[in-house]
Amino acid sequence: MQAKGHLGQLIHALRCLPGVGPKSAQRMAFHLLLRNREGAKALAQSLLAAVEHIGYCEQCRGLSEEPLCSLCASANRDHGQLCVVEMPTDVYAIDQAGCFRGVFFVLNGRLSPLDGIGPAELGMDLLEQRLAAGEVKEVVLATNTTVEGEATAHYIGEMAQRYGVRTTRIAYGVPLGGELEYIDGATLSLAFNGRRDF
Amino acid sequence: MQAKGHLGQLIHALRCLPGVGPKSAQRMAFHLLLRNREGAKALAQSLLAAVEHIGYCEQCRGLSEEPLCSLCASANRDHGQLCVVEMPTDVYAIDQAGCFRGVFFVLNGRLSPLDGIGPAELGMDLLEQRLAAGEVKEVVLATNTTVEGEATAHYIGEMAQRYGVRTTRIAYGVPLGGELEYIDGATLSLAFNGRRDF
Repeated sequence: MQAKGHLGQLIHALRCLPGVGPKSAQRMAFHLLLRNREGAKALAQSLLAAVEHIGYCEQCRGLSEEPLCSLCASANRDHGQLCVVEMPTDVYAIDQAGCFRGVFFVLNGRLSPLDGIGPAELGMDLLEQRLAAGEVKEVVLATNTTVEGEATAHYIGEMAQRYGVRTTRIAYGVPLGGELEYIDGATLSLAFNGRRDF
Repeated sequence: MQAKGHLGQLIHALRCLPGVGPKSAQRMAFHLLLRNREGAKALAQSLLAAVEHIGYCEQCRGLSEEPLCSLCASANRDHGQLCVVEMPTDVYAIDQAGCFRGVFFVLNGRLSPLDGIGPAELGMDLLEQRLAAGEVKEVVLATNTTVEGEATAHYIGEMAQRYGVRTTRIAYGVPLGGELEYIDGATLSLAFNGRRDF
């Protein structure tokens, strides 16, 4: 018996969640219907409210319920330091680490001409305006170490140079607790090339 | 930055799904907001529709949109064979295996006096009516092999005996493809106790 009707639709709809296949979706649907109907209703309301109210910050392009997100609106952050990341999730990761007190700019992607993603799709014009305005003293590039991430970092680095803004790239190397034996060669190369006086 | 507002609520609400912890919930929330807002809306609608329209079959206590589920209403099923299972998911698993052409009775639980789950909570009165009506010729017990599942099977077995209905229990033993080396001792005991002439 293939699940049909509303049950089948629910199982199908749950598969839009990342990492949820047919078996997990079925388990989730049964769990909600048999054990947590209130939770299912609350989840539905949260989904609708989130989709309706959460948009993008006008300044940093991160997710925000207001025209200006809490980070961009904060007077406690150093608005002279601008960290450029690929995704809003990166903002949360960096902010949770508590190692950076500046503000962010979210590309919501990376340069990838083959996929039709150029500077316009990443809001580079907005970033250029920020740099031209003169408030930013340092651009910290925190894009990923993929080919596209590196290309994006280079593009932004050149742009910052035109406006005479200092540009830095976060360090890549052996992670804390990482054992050399298990680290891949590319990371080891980065770690050796980035070695510092001790 | 802890996610607040609608985003925080969505992340919290997603945790009602089985197997979804804080990290997965955050990943799901960002995925939906950044990549699949249509999917999020569709999921919300499916959840509301499912909670509103899916109830329980009057006859077998399985999940159903109609007063009588498709299996109980089907003339193609052998209504003389009644398989008793703990959960609606068991019905799907057995039906998908295609090994049983009878109908089901879903307990939606198992006898567990310590948790306040007695015969009344499992619909045993409804099951007794079915047995008393005389249509059922065989009760196939497919409850789990836990202590509670066994106790439940015994309870139903005695009930069926009172009405002179044949009672069987599905075989427990080494699963297909299972290697003896890795099978637990309890299963091996069941397999040896249940051995048959070859």
